[in-house]
Amino acid sequence: MSQKLTGIAASSGVAIAKAFVHVEPNFEIELKEVADTKEEVDRFDSALAKSKEELAVIKDKTEAELGADKAEIFAAHLLVLSDPELVDAVKGKINDEKQNAEYALNEIANMFISMFENMDNEYMKERASDIRDVSKRVLGHLLGIEAQSLATISEETIVIAEDLTPSDTAQLNPVFIKGFATDIGGRTSHSAIMSRSLEIPAVVGAKEVTAKIETGMMIIVDGIDGDVIINPSSDELATYEKKKADFQKQKEEWAKLVNETSTTKDGHHVELAANIGTPKDLEGVINNGAEGIGLYRTEFLYMGRDALPTEDEQFEAYKEVVERMEGKPVVIRTLDIGGDKELPYLDLPKEMNPFLGYRAIRLCLEKDDMFRTQLRALLRASSYGQLKIMFPMIATLEELRQAKVLLAEEKEKLVAEGVEVSNDMEVGIMVEIPSTAVAADRFAKEVDFFSIGTNDLIQYTMAADRMNERVSYLYQPYHPAILRLVNMVIKAAHKEGKWAGMCGEMAGDEIAIPLLLGLGLDEFSMSATSILPARSQLLDLSKEELTTFAEEMLNLDTADEVEEQVRKAFVKA
Amino acid sequence: MSQKLTGIAASSGVAIAKAFVHVEPNFEIELKEVADTKEEVDRFDSALAKSKEELAVIKDKTEAELGADKAEIFAAHLLVLSDPELVDAVKGKINDEKQNAEYALNEIANMFISMFENMDNEYMKERASDIRDVSKRVLGHLLGIEAQSLATISEETIVIAEDLTPSDTAQLNPVFIKGFATDIGGRTSHSAIMSRSLEIPAVVGAKEVTAKIETGMMIIVDGIDGDVIINPSSDELATYEKKKADFQKQKEEWAKLVNETSTTKDGHHVELAANIGTPKDLEGVINNGAEGIGLYRTEFLYMGRDALPTEDEQFEAYKEVVERMEGKPVVIRTLDIGGDKELPYLDLPKEMNPFLGYRAIRLCLEKDDMFRTQLRALLRASSYGQLKIMFPMIATLEELRQAKVLLAEEKEKLVAEGVEVSNDMEVGIMVEIPSTAVAADRFAKEVDFFSIGTNDLIQYTMAADRMNERVSYLYQPYHPAILRLVNMVIKAAHKEGKWAGMCGEMAGDEIAIPLLLGLGLDEFSMSATSILPARSQLLDLSKEELTTFAEEMLNLDTADEVEEQVRKAFVKA
Repeated sequence: MSQKLTGIAASSGVAIAKAFVHVEPNFEIELKEVADTKEEVDRFDSALAKSKEELAVIKDKTEAELGADKAEIFAAHLLVLSDPELVDAVKGKINDEKQNAEYALNEIANMFISMFENMDNEYMKERASDIRDVSKRVLGHLLGIEAQSLATISEETIVIAEDLTPSDTAQLNPVFIKGFATDIGGRTSHSAIMSRSLEIPAVVGAKEVTAKIETGMMIIVDGIDGDVIINPSSDELATYEKKKADFQKQKEEWAKLVNETSTTKDGHHVELAANIGTPKDLEGVINNGAEGIGLYRTEFLYMGRDALPTEDEQFEAYKEVVERMEGKPVVIRTLDIGGDKELPYLDLPKEMNPFLGYRAIRLCLEKDDMFRTQLRALLRASSYGQLKIMFPMIATLEELRQAKVLLAEEKEKLVAEGVEVSNDMEVGIMVEIPSTAVAADRFAKEVDFFSIGTNDLIQYTMAADRMNERVSYLYQPYHPAILRLVNMVIKAAHKEGKWAGMCGEMAGDEIAIPLLLGLGLDEFSMSATSILPARSQLLDLSKEELTTFAEEMLNLDTADEVEEQVRKAFVKA
Repeated sequence: MSQKLTGIAASSGVAIAKAFVHVEPNFEIELKEVADTKEEVDRFDSALAKSKEELAVIKDKTEAELGADKAEIFAAHLLVLSDPELVDAVKGKINDEKQNAEYALNEIANMFISMFENMDNEYMKERASDIRDVSKRVLGHLLGIEAQSLATISEETIVIAEDLTPSDTAQLNPVFIKGFATDIGGRTSHSAIMSRSLEIPAVVGAKEVTAKIETGMMIIVDGIDGDVIINPSSDELATYEKKKADFQKQKEEWAKLVNETSTTKDGHHVELAANIGTPKDLEGVINNGAEGIGLYRTEFLYMGRDALPTEDEQFEAYKEVVERMEGKPVVIRTLDIGGDKELPYLDLPKEMNPFLGYRAIRLCLEKDDMFRTQLRALLRASSYGQLKIMFPMIATLEELRQAKVLLAEEKEKLVAEGVEVSNDMEVGIMVEIPSTAVAADRFAKEVDFFSIGTNDLIQYTMAADRMNERVSYLYQPYHPAILRLVNMVIKAAHKEGKWAGMCGEMAGDEIAIPLLLGLGLDEFSMSATSILPARSQLLDLSKEELTTFAEEMLNLDTADEVEEQVRKAFVKA
């Protein structure tokens, strides 16, 4: 008898293969009194050192294969291993209480884990996972237990696990690992994000997969609808083989669009661009036929290191991106740090509401030495292609004007130094704060373009932290108020002859695309893997028809009503 | 030679008197090893008990004289003394490390204080002050040192201090204490708030007052402009005597307006209402001639206790307020808890961004038993006067509809039980989330009124936590985007024949009043002490003239430009 479990569709596609149940090693940790505490501290230091070496290797491998943003988590893990709050606390327990290193580490790690887990939001829970993953690695070294390795799997397999840690997913080889399913996790959990990067079909949060599945069982993972079929019947096998083939065919259809422009059935052209974190992401961008970079997040240049990047380091990164895009537009966002993204070497204050705090342009205008360095690097790179500068978190015209003054001053200095700088570089802003959307007509006179950052704009407009599970239901991209703000921004830009783009998750969403097209959005910037499906969707849409439709949607009452109408009229079943 | 120090004007008026420099007792705390730990724990318990008794007396006195909201801080202090995290940690140090109680308490208190102080926001810093104030009280008992008392001062005096704790301000007798000046603090610090409640002229944050002033020196505190004059010359004395007399005269002019309606010079009437926290605040409301209650915050009923208030307790409080207002409108807001306001017995989760979190209506719709109890109490009180219900933090129409369903269900039950319930009770919402302002036309069809909560609306619209000093410059009530949202809300209400009020701080602000009048606001709800100055200001304003003016202000670029124009045209120097 077959059995079906339902979870969250994390990564599209269908996988059919035998299961491999990945079990965490079970560490038995006893408290022992150590005679020689110095020796025990040395043993702990040596386990830390081995763990750091391993993590450095994994980080480099991930960076090379999947890009620096995916490797970022291992930089965070390395930081955990160097965190004096953790390391010194463990050594304190060894020295003062003569505890063995395993016991001391386990105690301290569990204390931090339970502290972070008790905070009811995804971000802090991820911090708990980091510590769990890292402390297991160190414990393994202390106890001489080797972790079960997913790297050695060499036949077609579906991995089943309670959850997959970053260390686990770094080992997944897409040649053999055809899919995975986990008991816990959501669409934005680490394992879900990795499954999409690796393009492996995956279902997460299916609750009972490790309880119901044993290694060797035949399994189907349907990452389109979020189903896991255990011991499928021959009828089910046939159904899912067909679903798999259909999905494959659709992907091939999409692939044919890689060199096409993005044009609606009534001949209206929009630009489909990609969001990137580092130059390493460019391969995916080019393979997916992006017409430009709509958002280059420069934070990664500043993260996972212990000092600010130099002007030259930044210049090289920016230059590489504009050059490789061969004259296509590249929108580079200046540093958006603070909030949930910290830089240890900046020593930022702890804040009660970091999302409403000291971040991005607010911080850059105050720490203007750091900001000027970035502006110089951007200006220098501007002569190598079509670079556009974008300022994040602009809430007032004063901030925009101040940023533009700094930019003009650095440009003047560079010109005086004889450095070549583009003379027609566009300067724009993220529209992600409600005040800026509401006053977009004033801003439109002083920028070259807008890019609507929906992730933040929605959370501020709805006053709901999207990382907070208890209020995430209020993260409503189709709320008529959000659509009205988007409309105000686009209309304000067009009235001044400027263009308006969008670089939040909404820009690649199949329900949002018809609405945004109807409202007149010029540029849609999204994950590289969403570009071809979006281009395919546009082929079937009529801009003229959608203009009227979108206007009507602005006057509905609720997000649900909007979604229902769009689905009925413009989205294939 | 006289000397002038400048600080922050905390409370209007001029005081001229001799200084009394209030010095904190200096506790010398040595570590001693105690032989009998049980006896030491008893000594600590006894000091705790004495402190609790004192605090209970101070709390009752403050509640009787200044209202329950001002007494709330002492309830918080009482909670600190019962907090197991603090008390058990001290006892742990006594028991495990044989430390004397003074030393143990001082260590633990300092640990908590430095933890809270390192958080860069006002709210957490206030928590540090609470612990400092409370632990000093307990240390005084342990060491047998009596705190210098401000209560015994019996001649006209200006108090000079580094800062005044809640315990200090509770002792200030306005008959003798003519004014005060402090080194530290801002307009929203505890001592500043208390100075306004007590109507004592005060300057805070003047940095050097304790360094430059000695007890017995002649001092002028100018709480209008924020100046402190030390050893004034006879010319200066004459100048400030006149300023004091002018201020007194102005207050007398204002007092004449207590029974007047609030009418502009072109005969337009608006309603000036008061914000209250408890029935105890009604005396000030009536003395200041409020035409209604625009915001009754019901949180205080739920705070400083260890279980939810019963339906009857709530009914009595609501009934008292509507009865004493004798048919004047009373807008009662349902529970707005969560965010920065916690209820220990509800066991709410810690959140990363509490201002964007699980609070107010979001929480009430989930904990609907608690919510239904409040709705029943409100419905029962509705037949005793003109009660209006208002729901806080509404972001979507679904939330409003759900709240209205619960209200209708409880009403039906009460009617079935034969309880008298008003049949024309108005139901409205706070507009404090940008989405609701932007979609106000949709909401206007389903409510009886709007009340714009500017404190939250501004912080969400600007994406800036107003408690966070680093971004508080972005708390801009006159930002054209804020004015546009306010305008949208008012126009949407009027189009459906509904009324629009405002109950944030902005409603009582002399720069905002001309703008709000021009935009058509119907009701202004503010601190009771702001009502008469606002009524006086309205006498000189013309609604017709301001309608055109306010429209123009919507199209300026910045908050500074708006403020400048209003000052030039409509505010007396």
